[in-house]
Amino acid sequence: MPARTPSSPTTGLPGGEFGLIEWIRQRTGSHPLVDVGIGDDAAMLSWPTTHPALVAVDMLVENVHFDLSRAKPEQVGHKALAVNLSDIAAMGGQPLAAVVSVALPRGSQHDLGQRLHDGLITLAEQTGVALAGGDTTATDGPLVVSVTVIGTPLEGGPILRSGARPGDRLLVTGYLGNSRERHHLDFTPRLAESVGLVESGGLHAMIDISDGLAADLHHVLTASGVGARLNASDIPTREPDTPVRDGRTPLAHAVADGEDFELLAAVDPRVAEELVAAPPCGTPLSDIGEIVPGSGVELVMPNGHIVPLPPLGYEHRID
Amino acid sequence: MPARTPSSPTTGLPGGEFGLIEWIRQRTGSHPLVDVGIGDDAAMLSWPTTHPALVAVDMLVENVHFDLSRAKPEQVGHKALAVNLSDIAAMGGQPLAAVVSVALPRGSQHDLGQRLHDGLITLAEQTGVALAGGDTTATDGPLVVSVTVIGTPLEGGPILRSGARPGDRLLVTGYLGNSRERHHLDFTPRLAESVGLVESGGLHAMIDISDGLAADLHHVLTASGVGARLNASDIPTREPDTPVRDGRTPLAHAVADGEDFELLAAVDPRVAEELVAAPPCGTPLSDIGEIVPGSGVELVMPNGHIVPLPPLGYEHRID
Repeated sequence: MPARTPSSPTTGLPGGEFGLIEWIRQRTGSHPLVDVGIGDDAAMLSWPTTHPALVAVDMLVENVHFDLSRAKPEQVGHKALAVNLSDIAAMGGQPLAAVVSVALPRGSQHDLGQRLHDGLITLAEQTGVALAGGDTTATDGPLVVSVTVIGTPLEGGPILRSGARPGDRLLVTGYLGNSRERHHLDFTPRLAESVGLVESGGLHAMIDISDGLAADLHHVLTASGVGARLNASDIPTREPDTPVRDGRTPLAHAVADGEDFELLAAVDPRVAEELVAAPPCGTPLSDIGEIVPGSGVELVMPNGHIVPLPPLGYEHRID
Repeated sequence: MPARTPSSPTTGLPGGEFGLIEWIRQRTGSHPLVDVGIGDDAAMLSWPTTHPALVAVDMLVENVHFDLSRAKPEQVGHKALAVNLSDIAAMGGQPLAAVVSVALPRGSQHDLGQRLHDGLITLAEQTGVALAGGDTTATDGPLVVSVTVIGTPLEGGPILRSGARPGDRLLVTGYLGNSRERHHLDFTPRLAESVGLVESGGLHAMIDISDGLAADLHHVLTASGVGARLNASDIPTREPDTPVRDGRTPLAHAVADGEDFELLAAVDPRVAEELVAAPPCGTPLSDIGEIVPGSGVELVMPNGHIVPLPPLGYEHRID
């Protein structure tokens, strides 16, 4: 049965689909990139001539990627856009515009859609991204948010996963292993840091850490056909004020936890030294190891022992 | 709690998220527009220089937009892309690339994701659209599919909702009121017909009929600041072989049912006559009325009586 039968023409949203869309339209404002915004069959964007387009998409599902008993709707909206901006940053790109589709649970609080969009629009404004359009519907299931971001490579980009070379240093922004407490809802995508890394001229490969350091490093190594050696002592672990809630060490969290959304970069060794000495935007930048010929990851433990680090770090305890 | 904790790093998909993505990658093949496809943080598309970008997004939710007891997964994938292609057609645009995000119910048949993508990729191939990337996750709720299509206006486009002028003829492709039986799952988006309408040079405004003729016509009228007069006898109703399952007349279905996904166009009267005489692609094209000054819709019934047609046609019986 099609959704829009004569007896249920709207999607059953609190306040109505059109009411929310009108609120979003007013809240969004104008953007120089958007020639046709919300309210026609499609959005139209001015496009920087001769530049290719980068496209990233991520879908967040309630009780899979967030829990509304612990996350505010604004945080969900923030995260839904931020994960995509992190992907664009990891490509050495500049985000330009976003479209969002949302399935709102029937019977949810009437301002859920507004609060979610409020978080999303706030981050869009902070990062100069145009919210160009969207789609809102109802669902009998959990809240679902899908965001697509369109951007363009920075001068010197794009930076793929496949460009790492033996001898490259492995640099990581910020701290790892902090996602589970709160960071995964509040993180700032590393767009500005990406600009600095690309402008350094020595950036060969990059990825954002969404599946965990071990898993995402393996993605780079597989794509590049190389291996890596990491120094456990150099991996930037939890921020001092982040509580440890389980028996696992900060190193285990840093290596295996997902959703840190920091950048992992393979960089020419001479340029890497300069970057670490004067990191872009003042964000901590750690040299955690190097790219080596071969395949797989060796982890040099603080006591000097060398252990293999599998792609799914969580399958082994690392103590 | 973030989704990817050490104890549940994958999304719990049957066969695994990475297994499905690898299947999609192999099934998709290469496309001249796609410089970087599935398998990096974002896709990269070559972009036709100096052309703006059109962006459309639509989300389909199980039991809202389709029923898996009546629709094959391939049909759901087809529809998820087709509704967006219909939006691009309604803008007078050419679709170039699509990205898709899917939330697959835990415990669903292991080939649901593959079959859904199979329907989507088949339509993409038929229409020359690049499937550039996507995201797949699990859900505790119903199946959700969100597709974003990026395109560019045809020469002579874009065609907005806001360009209708008094004296324009209102043309509609195909037949209306056929969505509920099956059409909403199988329809062919009117991309080729859109090209013909744009190339006619007399096309002033256009929309695809997704909410119903009455509702979508009102969208055009509101955006254009005009009214319309429709001739009931000229509205193309059900195809002869489509059964009538309820007591409502074919006209009532044609005016009020959603999801016909035909094009409704406001066209210069002289050009309209030529178009109707030689419709693009041989698809039936009906002249159903005209744009008039003022606002709202008057419906001229077969007996000559004139009745107002509200935006939500289903609120009145039209017999």
